[in-house]
Amino acid sequence: MKIGGHAYRTIWPEDDGARVAIIDQTKLPHRFEIVHLATAGDAARAILTMQVRGAPLIGVTAAYGVALAMRVDASDEALCAAVDLLARQRPTAVNLRWALEEMRQHLAPVEPGKRADAALAHAGRLADQDVAMCKAIGEHGLSIIREIAAGKKPGERVNVLTHCNAGWLACVDWGTATSPMYHAHDAGIALHVWVDETRPRNQGAALTAFELGAHGVPHTLIADNAGGHLMQRGAVDLVIVGTDRVTASGDVANKIGTYLKALAAKDTGVPFYVALPQSTIDWTLEDGFAIPIEERSGDEVLRLSGRTAEGAVHLFDIAPEGCAAANPAFDVTPARLVTGLITERGICAASRPGLLGLYPERGAAA
Amino acid sequence: MKIGGHAYRTIWPEDDGARVAIIDQTKLPHRFEIVHLATAGDAARAILTMQVRGAPLIGVTAAYGVALAMRVDASDEALCAAVDLLARQRPTAVNLRWALEEMRQHLAPVEPGKRADAALAHAGRLADQDVAMCKAIGEHGLSIIREIAAGKKPGERVNVLTHCNAGWLACVDWGTATSPMYHAHDAGIALHVWVDETRPRNQGAALTAFELGAHGVPHTLIADNAGGHLMQRGAVDLVIVGTDRVTASGDVANKIGTYLKALAAKDTGVPFYVALPQSTIDWTLEDGFAIPIEERSGDEVLRLSGRTAEGAVHLFDIAPEGCAAANPAFDVTPARLVTGLITERGICAASRPGLLGLYPERGAAA
Repeated sequence: MKIGGHAYRTIWPEDDGARVAIIDQTKLPHRFEIVHLATAGDAARAILTMQVRGAPLIGVTAAYGVALAMRVDASDEALCAAVDLLARQRPTAVNLRWALEEMRQHLAPVEPGKRADAALAHAGRLADQDVAMCKAIGEHGLSIIREIAAGKKPGERVNVLTHCNAGWLACVDWGTATSPMYHAHDAGIALHVWVDETRPRNQGAALTAFELGAHGVPHTLIADNAGGHLMQRGAVDLVIVGTDRVTASGDVANKIGTYLKALAAKDTGVPFYVALPQSTIDWTLEDGFAIPIEERSGDEVLRLSGRTAEGAVHLFDIAPEGCAAANPAFDVTPARLVTGLITERGICAASRPGLLGLYPERGAAA
Repeated sequence: MKIGGHAYRTIWPEDDGARVAIIDQTKLPHRFEIVHLATAGDAARAILTMQVRGAPLIGVTAAYGVALAMRVDASDEALCAAVDLLARQRPTAVNLRWALEEMRQHLAPVEPGKRADAALAHAGRLADQDVAMCKAIGEHGLSIIREIAAGKKPGERVNVLTHCNAGWLACVDWGTATSPMYHAHDAGIALHVWVDETRPRNQGAALTAFELGAHGVPHTLIADNAGGHLMQRGAVDLVIVGTDRVTASGDVANKIGTYLKALAAKDTGVPFYVALPQSTIDWTLEDGFAIPIEERSGDEVLRLSGRTAEGAVHLFDIAPEGCAAANPAFDVTPARLVTGLITERGICAASRPGLLGLYPERGAAA
């Protein structure tokens, strides 16, 4: 997507693969800085410190990390060491392990002399695959937005509400939840996005507002508390969010607070869609409440990052000293509250039959 | 309630009424500072700058402001001037105008030589009335908490969730939503409060967490996004919130985000109570959606107050430069989502028959 009129991905190789460039997401929204990774160690640090975040982007960064390692030493031992190093940085990231396994299997039969080039090419393919997946999600989601736009009077905008950042900054390009929005905007549909700030980590304020603004999509930041009121007053045409895991029955685990927005959407008759690539579907699980919910540090509630009038970026405390805080990172939205799932294969009901309609091969496996 | 082991009200006269002391609420939760008001102008400034806030406390502060004015000049002109000055500070505060009219009517027939003493005494009566009202709300609410506590196993706590600050800092003592909590805690019931931080103004993090902590009530601060998840997981026994206006049919206008919590409570079977003094009931209105919703500055979403590691308190920006923000201050929770209203006269259903059961004199008037 665009930043300052230039098209970017979140990660790209430079100097024939000697370096890999990323956008330092820890600096957003206050500063836009590009960082260059020259070694697998650099890639590991970028993953650990969350300069890159979002499952797809973490995976692709790790793949490029392997490619950087292969330039220095393309032995089997070095391949193993690079994979192990990179996998350790975010222990629960399924996509990270998947991408590394993909690289290992692809490179194992390649003779060491050709591994550096093969690794660079394969990391590029994984990046391209992610872009194609997100693009397909966007094209399917665009059909929903087109239909709503067709019912609008001239001059009226389609109002989408989104939570957290399931944006291109979490992927390589397009994003998941944001992809239909970028497609609609680029197609000339008058679109406006309500951006939940998404406390406590503020990914909406820091990342979604930044990326929509940088691409030129009209948007308005709101407190997470405001979405229900906006839906009651008819100011929201549809909700599109991403997800961390969808069960085989269509329950949706996503950033904390998603459930509250889904309830409001149901109560007010606003369509509530979840955008996801098929890798997010957990076919082994039926009940969303069986998904373990990460309990993160209460410090994220008590303390946040901002910039002063002078432009300095600091951490600030907002609560009384010594205050206890709890910080569940995700919640589960039951399938009954979800209007539909938007995947790279199309749109389906949030149910086992709905999902099997798009992924019939999974029915045979069950 | 207590701060540092000492019992406080939010406002009290000193030096035989020559000065009136308040807690500077703009400094909370970072600093606890007492400010002395010596003139009606001081009281007006305290109201304007929100050193005092909350409808009941604003009213009582204005009443004391009149008393301070009468010490300098107790003429009819001075009485009018003081009332006018104080009323101008918060144009939409109904309670402010009510308290000033109360003072005017009480003082008009008093001869000027006795007005200073009469004003001080009457302001004290208004303060005491508010305390008695809040105390009665607490005693009625306590019965609900007692019943829940009776069903708990030994060692289990009663978990209450609250939104915003309908606490004693908004009143003279006890608060409205917090009064049942203080009564339960003081009665020895093991109680724990989930405190919504209440973006964008963070009254939960800044005020409710402060006052519960200062009194010794166990509590945990959470992002506004977290309440639904906690209810899904059985971690909330009941919700108690305050309100800015309740219609005759039981619709509840309260701080933005209240509606989302009420939806989650309904969806998960958690009782949802609203605590209020009768002055909050708008008998002229049936439909909550007819209540005008204040649209406050988006700056409150973009910028917030916090303290650095060095203890300095600053405003800081959390969103991209130039980001648009919307900030509706209240939302409406339909009566169908409200388990009951807790008033100074008792507990009733959120409906016209429910309210008329407690306030039968309003039925005759209709």
